Amino acid sequence: MKSIDKFYSAVTNGKHICVGLDTDIEKIPNHLKNSDDPIFLFNKSIIDATRAEAAAYKLNFAFYEASGIEGLTSLKKTIEYIGEEIFIIADAKRGDIGSTSAMYAKSVYDYFKFDSITLHPYMGYDSVQPFLEYKDKLNFVLALTSNKSANDFETLTLSTSEKLYQKVIAKVNEWNKQFANCGIVFGATQIEQLQENIQLIKDLPILLPGVGAQGGSLEEVITLFKQHHFTPYLINASRSIIYASNGNDFAEKAAEELKKLNAEIVTLSSAQ
Amino acid sequence: MKSIDKFYSAVTNGKHICVGLDTDIEKIPNHLKNSDDPIFLFNKSIIDATRAEAAAYKLNFAFYEASGIEGLTSLKKTIEYIGEEIFIIADAKRGDIGSTSAMYAKSVYDYFKFDSITLHPYMGYDSVQPFLEYKDKLNFVLALTSNKSANDFETLTLSTSEKLYQKVIAKVNEWNKQFANCGIVFGATQIEQLQENIQLIKDLPILLPGVGAQGGSLEEVITLFKQHHFTPYLINASRSIIYASNGNDFAEKAAEELKKLNAEIVTLSSAQ
Repeated sequence: MKSIDKFYSAVTNGKHICVGLDTDIEKIPNHLKNSDDPIFLFNKSIIDATRAEAAAYKLNFAFYEASGIEGLTSLKKTIEYIGEEIFIIADAKRGDIGSTSAMYAKSVYDYFKFDSITLHPYMGYDSVQPFLEYKDKLNFVLALTSNKSANDFETLTLSTSEKLYQKVIAKVNEWNKQFANCGIVFGATQIEQLQENIQLIKDLPILLPGVGAQGGSLEEVITLFKQHHFTPYLINASRSIIYASNGNDFAEKAAEELKKLNAEIVTLSSAQ
Repeated sequence: MKSIDKFYSAVTNGKHICVGLDTDIEKIPNHLKNSDDPIFLFNKSIIDATRAEAAAYKLNFAFYEASGIEGLTSLKKTIEYIGEEIFIIADAKRGDIGSTSAMYAKSVYDYFKFDSITLHPYMGYDSVQPFLEYKDKLNFVLALTSNKSANDFETLTLSTSEKLYQKVIAKVNEWNKQFANCGIVFGATQIEQLQENIQLIKDLPILLPGVGAQGGSLEEVITLFKQHHFTPYLINASRSIIYASNGNDFAEKAAEELKKLNAEIVTLSSAQ
């Protein structure tokens, strides 16, 4: 299946939770730490336990790069272990001049074989374009992020009265006309702004981090998308799932947490 | 010597050219390609030939990540080979929510042992702050970049009449008050804007990419900084140096190119 089709297949079937494998060697259960590759072993257990219920997996490069070459080896093994059936996002937040972005695209899409990436918009179209050339992939550009300092620049008002992040969304819509392989990142903590901009976002795929540890409300997100069912979305949950328990039952508890979120989505979606 | 002191030591001694080791496996001389680690071998030869004249080295992660684990192994070996004496910049353009940026900082500063990094401003202060905690390092935030699409967002006018990149510079000046370990990236192709904003930039260190292959003029940059000698700066040249020749003499030609640039700087700096 084409990368982008995996995304649409998941969300069309009502699967919306993306499991964020932000695996921090300091936070995994102690009994794993003496193995050859604790990060991979942790991920493998989480994947085995959540595979049937996950819409997608998202791996944030930072957590793997922190352990250097070893960490990136764990990252590669994890992607191979997830396999071809499930949509996998490289949360890499890359963006550079065109010839350099082309090298990042080569890394993320050709070498690591991700289905999707997150990108910084700051440098504009030519910094994003090499990723778009991978027509079957899905490229999520940061619009409004879940962190407090999003207000430093993202929400600044332009002379045209638009906010900067609204200008980003408008541009992404424009870029999307070429191959329909763009999406945006919008923090689940920014629910009012999401509501205000849903007509601008239209049918652009959205990746929403920030539910759980960062304080975003699943109920608010689902209620919003119930009214705007044309917008395909993934909600990322990382820490609340993968660190649901710190004991021997960590994988089981992760699966329970994911099931709980999925059940909440069903309930909220069917509520009047 | 502290990382940041290496920077000031170089520029105070009139060294301003940063050699960009954007090493692309496709572009290195053929006779190196059969070795065990062609990227490292190429870098090693360039470093041997340029070490005495280089103000700094800059390694763009994309070119190494493109070859995956192997490429990052070459990156690590290259940093170790350069050693402790010369300022080394991770051109990584990272930026994520705080807890994630902390992992990137761990990677770039603790694991790879760079002296400096380039960062995306889009997500604001808390995405940059974990890097600033490394007080002896120098953190270059993207202001106005050298690519054409810099006009998509960076030069947008805000409701306050400032341009977005001017707001970024103002914020970086504010962030810099804490530990004096911030700088900005400003494209050498954007000379008029650099001239207009030099009073805003004040004594913030500047990294200027875009001289050479991207079309920036060394003469214009040097002439400007002659008038504003309070601004410490590095001019990056990548392709024009490292690919000066594609033959057996590639390292020798790289050294010649660097010497030529340094000689031009001396001439331009002393001209009336």
